[in-house]
Amino acid sequence: MSVYQIIEKLGITLPPVATPAAPYVPFVRTGNLVFLSGHISRKDGKPHTGQLGAGMAVDEAKAAARSVAIDLLGTLHAATGGNLDQVHRIVNLMVLVNSAPAFTEHHLVANGASELLGEVFGDAGKHARAAFGVAQIPFGCCVEITLVAELTPGT
Amino acid sequence: MSVYQIIEKLGITLPPVATPAAPYVPFVRTGNLVFLSGHISRKDGKPHTGQLGAGMAVDEAKAAARSVAIDLLGTLHAATGGNLDQVHRIVNLMVLVNSAPAFTEHHLVANGASELLGEVFGDAGKHARAAFGVAQIPFGCCVEITLVAELTPGT
Amino acid sequence: MSVYQIIEKLGITLPPVATPAAPYVPFVRTGNLVFLSGHISRKDGKPHTGQLGAGMAVDEAKAAARSVAIDLLGTLHAATGGNLDQVHRIVNLMVLVNSAPAFTEHHLVANGASELLGEVFGDAGKHARAAFGVAQIPFGCCVEITLVAELTPGT
Repeated sequence: MSVYQIIEKLGITLPPVATPAAPYVPFVRTGNLVFLSGHISRKDGKPHTGQLGAGMAVDEAKAAARSVAIDLLGTLHAATGGNLDQVHRIVNLMVLVNSAPAFTEHHLVANGASELLGEVFGDAGKHARAAFGVAQIPFGCCVEITLVAELTPGT
Repeated sequence: MSVYQIIEKLGITLPPVATPAAPYVPFVRTGNLVFLSGHISRKDGKPHTGQLGAGMAVDEAKAAARSVAIDLLGTLHAATGGNLDQVHRIVNLMVLVNSAPAFTEHHLVANGASELLGEVFGDAGKHARAAFGVAQIPFGCCVEITLVAELTPGT
Repeated sequence: MSVYQIIEKLGITLPPVATPAAPYVPFVRTGNLVFLSGHISRKDGKPHTGQLGAGMAVDEAKAAARSVAIDLLGTLHAATGGNLDQVHRIVNLMVLVNSAPAFTEHHLVANGASELLGEVFGDAGKHARAAFGVAQIPFGCCVEITLVAELTPGT
């Protein structure tokens, strides 16, 4: 099954790449690696805001992390010229969770993104990861994620 | 125009590389990539301190981010053996903003660094980026930035 | 002297790799680079918790950072198929320190990890580094560290 068949089966619609207003870009390829910019949580096209440990439930933030991972897939789709099957491996994720000082379950939030990548890419979706709590995220978003992927050489 | 002519035109003087007192180094090259250590904001040779959302204005922090980018250029100058024209692409920036819990405009602060890299390198300066708010930065600095660049193969 | 002789001389016992319960992995190799997941501070097999600037002393956290670096070595040992001498260079460290807003000496904490890598690998252990204070770390740990290493080509 191609990655796109799996995505369809999961009922996922890939979003278009968000074009940053600022002087940076959604991704940069160097050699076989592609670095994706920090993608922030969105809901209905607007920032999905909230802080863990200050009113937001883990389940809602975990769903937000899954949604950010779908946005990252949309960017990877663009980075591969529309051929996600060129993704050889998801290498690394940095998952930032908007945290009040007492919240300590960032790993559970991050699993929302990690599990989606496993569902879509199988073993190739198993990545190294760091998850932790930050003081704030642009626009007050609850989650921000960066991703590094390896593309198949020669593609 | 070479990168150095652009830098001169912008009125920028490259600083010498700060040698860390600790057992780490300002940059490491691996293959065509060079990873730069976190560079912290300085003013008149001393830490440029402050916290956004706790008295420091966005404009001051944006200027600090631009200044950190100039320090990063100084380190890249050293990493290329004095030949910044060997920089093929700025790949990735991680911009840490010293943030009180209510501040949510880290992207505006980070633009200070991103815009400078665009001015100096043009399209080759367009990078992937993550910007977010951290609880604190060494010495109380307002901004800390890491950078990954790709150098021209064979150089 | 091989890296293992140095490790023995330092009185260090490499721990087994902790297998994450979640859908991610302790390390991913891509080309000659290996990306290690965020490793959190542990003591007697349990999370080593605490927050700097809120009761925990710098020395204790520095020792925790050294201990995390030993765990990272254990993971690198696994990543090299049991041959740490294949490590060509430690490239990059990101050291997250669990910080109350007033703590500003994250660099001193991070030195615990940086110094150990210098002792074990000598010049090859000198890395680029970012250290900063985060709002929280999973399980309330005091330190979390990610590492990127370059392995000898062809190994």
